[in-house]
Amino acid sequence: MAENNFSLAATLQSMLEAKKYTSIRDVLVTMNPADVASVLEDMEEAKLPLLFRLLPKEEAAETFVEMEPELQELLIKGFSDVELKEVLDELYVDDAVDIVEEMPANVVKRILKAADPTMRREINEILRYPENSAGSMMTTEYVSLRPDMTVEQAILRIRRTGVDKETIYTCYVTKDRKILGIVTVKDLLLAPDDEMLISDLMTTNVISVNTSTDQEEVAQMLSKYNYLALPVVDNEERMVGIVTFDDAMDVMEDEATEDIEIMGGMTPSDKSYLRSTPLDLFRHRIPWLLLLMVSATFTGMIISHFENALAAQVVLTAFIPMLMDTGGNSGSQASVTVIRALSLGELEFSDLTSAIWKEVRTAVMCGCVLAVACFGKIMLVDHLLMHNPSVTPVVALVVCLALAITVLAAKVIGCLLPMLAKKIGFDPAVMASPFITTMVDAISLLVYFAIATSLLPM
Amino acid sequence: MAENNFSLAATLQSMLEAKKYTSIRDVLVTMNPADVASVLEDMEEAKLPLLFRLLPKEEAAETFVEMEPELQELLIKGFSDVELKEVLDELYVDDAVDIVEEMPANVVKRILKAADPTMRREINEILRYPENSAGSMMTTEYVSLRPDMTVEQAILRIRRTGVDKETIYTCYVTKDRKILGIVTVKDLLLAPDDEMLISDLMTTNVISVNTSTDQEEVAQMLSKYNYLALPVVDNEERMVGIVTFDDAMDVMEDEATEDIEIMGGMTPSDKSYLRSTPLDLFRHRIPWLLLLMVSATFTGMIISHFENALAAQVVLTAFIPMLMDTGGNSGSQASVTVIRALSLGELEFSDLTSAIWKEVRTAVMCGCVLAVACFGKIMLVDHLLMHNPSVTPVVALVVCLALAITVLAAKVIGCLLPMLAKKIGFDPAVMASPFITTMVDAISLLVYFAIATSLLPM
Repeated sequence: MAENNFSLAATLQSMLEAKKYTSIRDVLVTMNPADVASVLEDMEEAKLPLLFRLLPKEEAAETFVEMEPELQELLIKGFSDVELKEVLDELYVDDAVDIVEEMPANVVKRILKAADPTMRREINEILRYPENSAGSMMTTEYVSLRPDMTVEQAILRIRRTGVDKETIYTCYVTKDRKILGIVTVKDLLLAPDDEMLISDLMTTNVISVNTSTDQEEVAQMLSKYNYLALPVVDNEERMVGIVTFDDAMDVMEDEATEDIEIMGGMTPSDKSYLRSTPLDLFRHRIPWLLLLMVSATFTGMIISHFENALAAQVVLTAFIPMLMDTGGNSGSQASVTVIRALSLGELEFSDLTSAIWKEVRTAVMCGCVLAVACFGKIMLVDHLLMHNPSVTPVVALVVCLALAITVLAAKVIGCLLPMLAKKIGFDPAVMASPFITTMVDAISLLVYFAIATSLLPM
Repeated sequence: MAENNFSLAATLQSMLEAKKYTSIRDVLVTMNPADVASVLEDMEEAKLPLLFRLLPKEEAAETFVEMEPELQELLIKGFSDVELKEVLDELYVDDAVDIVEEMPANVVKRILKAADPTMRREINEILRYPENSAGSMMTTEYVSLRPDMTVEQAILRIRRTGVDKETIYTCYVTKDRKILGIVTVKDLLLAPDDEMLISDLMTTNVISVNTSTDQEEVAQMLSKYNYLALPVVDNEERMVGIVTFDDAMDVMEDEATEDIEIMGGMTPSDKSYLRSTPLDLFRHRIPWLLLLMVSATFTGMIISHFENALAAQVVLTAFIPMLMDTGGNSGSQASVTVIRALSLGELEFSDLTSAIWKEVRTAVMCGCVLAVACFGKIMLVDHLLMHNPSVTPVVALVVCLALAITVLAAKVIGCLLPMLAKKIGFDPAVMASPFITTMVDAISLLVYFAIATSLLPM
């Protein structure tokens, strides 16, 4: 798809140079706003305001929402106050808030000044909620109905007020801002009788989230219940907004990306890979690299401590990488599985003992198979094929024993640390491969040398 | 939430023992089907059929869909033919297909026999499409309208046929099964005039997917365009079904989990962590552990090859873990970022050179900072503080040079391999940490010994 956009960008570029503005407009209006946004992003930045002004008002606003923050900022700076107001008037409140959150202070000031008073108040209200909470991702534009309305009156109300609402399909029956029930447009259309009362039609078993509920949990609830929208209530149980499925999908994607980045030993980034400069990448990667490098000092110290043992049995060195890597891989398998289960809500801290017991049994199976395979490999390849005289069966035994114990320790640590992190309020994803590897390295070396010094002549 | 379900399960269990069936029913009907399913899963298996029969027909079917395959199978085996037919009649075709896909052959036979002829035909049709394709995740139940209908006629048609459709909110205007346009219920309700023709109201810029489109791409398109549903067409561009947002959310979650599992060096699993037995975990983990252990033979061979150099300068051994770990971490940072960008469709193979050039510049910055920090740390800690006489400035220089080159190689490999894998049709996620680590280990050791043998007295 990126390739298509690139060539389309080239076509538009030449049409732009030939000043064929009407034709450009004709091309753009047939496209979906998300696609227009990605085409515009590939165009020369200086031409952006011109191209953007070719779009009809409503499509312009929808395209604006889909663009990268840097380009939004560039466009806003080029807008007159009237143009800015026109775009803002077409936005849903939650999209306006997303934009405001990414802009520098002076741009935010201009936006809030240009927005109409209702929207300004609503933007400010949503901005008060903590980042990544249901309150910060909700929109205040939903359809509310009264319980004493008839089906016909409800449909009339939707027809009158629906145009500005992010979704009209789920309507909330409220009294004094408390939610009494939910009515869908499907319920309304399929109702047997137009005179039926909303209070008789509504579902009263309403699932809602609090403004402070974490956005990841909100997304998972929407996905679990297959809802189009979830109502958001404040601490007094008064309804303040809704979160819709499309925002939940974005949250799911962002949270998975964030987990993957943290598990890969990086601080998470908002920018896409292609938009990140090498300096951005450097800044997100160097802290963990430095930290892990320094913590590898311990493994170095362990090796230095056993320098004499190693000098007496140089052959032991050759198996250090295999031991460390297998330990690291075993630990990261356990940690990655546990981290994902925690973040999908499948696993809780209360499952700690059963999870560890599961990992112990898995580790015993993995450890035995690996130890036997390793013993066979060493005796076959190193001893028989390569005729390495220092690789004796006792050396092979030392390596395999150390391997089995390392796998066990790695799996337990890989399971334990993410769950402990979650318990004390840290992000479990931090406890993934890089971190586990460093710990497992140290343990595997200690075990290795302890077994070696007791079984081999030193 | 799991905790709440557990205690609710206990309450129901004691109500069950006291034979308070009406009260149990009263509790269950207030709950959402997804929650009923998770409560039932925590109950004694023998009591399941009894509890299930307490549910009203429609809720029973919705609950059934949300249950784990093992319990669905257990229930089906206990159903009479009439009961099975009752549940099936309430299911949407795509849910029925999901269930059929998980069941053993004899159960599938019973299901197909009990289904009414239309559903049987549709199930068989969907089963023909390859796994993970749009065809296999679609439902054939959608609302189609004719272009010459008026708004009023369209609403009437929805009222008459809508009850069995998975979504009524997006309707497809078709002629000879080709899609002419899309009309939403919002468009219909907000239409200025009931006599307006559908052909004048519809959006003609329709985005559709082919039956063979990969489910991950379908989910990303739904998310990108914020659609409730996407139409699925066959190779003759005839509409055959729709994919809805709730299935797309499940796919997004499953695909992210699958990527994370593969990146963690496991074969992907369908079961949740708590439902996986140690034997399941073992089977998904041991192949990669064995493969990576055997491939670590190469690093062992490199070390054996330079045994004399190591014997002459035993101090070099102490820095091997740090070198290997930092290389591995640098490589997995790059690979994880690239794999995620590839799977979100942000990055294409055509971006290869710009991606590698970006990684090279990032690697130079990371490498320089790490080398300087490492030199400082070695001179300060090992040389000055620990008074290790064999740690000379030249040794520190060897380590730091090797470190910088390793980081560069690791980042380039970490970026290159996933993109090559994608190009030749492999899953890029396979090229994550475990695989990259093994390659980078070998490279870092070769570089290390090459620099050491040329700079140090051997």
